[in-house]
Amino acid sequence: MSKGVLGTNVVAQVGIIVKDIEKTSQAYADFFGVEKPPANPTDPLDKAQTNYKGDPTEARAKLAFFDMGSLQLELIEPDEHPSTWREFLDTHGEGVHHIAFVVKDMKATVAKMESRNMPLVQKGEYTGGRYAYMDTFNELKVILELLENDN
Amino acid sequence: MSKGVLGTNVVAQVGIIVKDIEKTSQAYADFFGVEKPPANPTDPLDKAQTNYKGDPTEARAKLAFFDMGSLQLELIEPDEHPSTWREFLDTHGEGVHHIAFVVKDMKATVAKMESRNMPLVQKGEYTGGRYAYMDTFNELKVILELLENDN
Repeated sequence: MSKGVLGTNVVAQVGIIVKDIEKTSQAYADFFGVEKPPANPTDPLDKAQTNYKGDPTEARAKLAFFDMGSLQLELIEPDEHPSTWREFLDTHGEGVHHIAFVVKDMKATVAKMESRNMPLVQKGEYTGGRYAYMDTFNELKVILELLENDN
Repeated sequence: MSKGVLGTNVVAQVGIIVKDIEKTSQAYADFFGVEKPPANPTDPLDKAQTNYKGDPTEARAKLAFFDMGSLQLELIEPDEHPSTWREFLDTHGEGVHHIAFVVKDMKATVAKMESRNMPLVQKGEYTGGRYAYMDTFNELKVILELLENDN
């Protein structure tokens, strides 16, 4: 447990934006000699309560996860609706979008980061928890994702 | 130990290209509540034998490492000479450049990857080992770095 802003320095996920999740997921499976995982869509707005830059958004993404040692590699195929995923794809093209950390108190951590000029960009719920993407690009040259799990 | 091309799926490093390593390193140290590590230059050409796209290059970079759980986060500030680091900065700007894996037989792994249309982009020596950047971007949407350590 670190004394830093997050209370942790353990990278839980590396998130990569892709255009064609089936194709890239197959390439990872072939390369690392593992089963191709399912590419599951994020929940719709009413369930995920997805919020991007302060407004609700219909945006969803297909996600596929690979276990890579102690962390997960997450492939993300955005849809056309406004999201941090779509914005990254339109601006940068495919590539690494974020690194993720599991935090204990999402609300307090978001507040602490916002007070350091690292604004919340997007948040949403998933079964068993919630996520928040923080705009840390200016300072850390990568977006940080916070994950809070209920158990 | 996976049966994939690398014989491993454990991410050893995440490498981030930055313009000002002192500034970004300080931001990471402040954020994660750790000491700012030194930013050390890679070795000069005669020692590092740096080779970029088949030719020797004078390119060097300043590197700073942060321990983040089981992996290292590596900040890389390229100089002006031709390198995969410089090319990334000129093309994409700052951001995540590669993920790295420790392999047991560098030569065989490079050969295996080249036969899969994942060419060697840059290689070099460091004290105690050597590295190779492989162009896996088309397939995996990120550059892979191979690390081979002597012990």
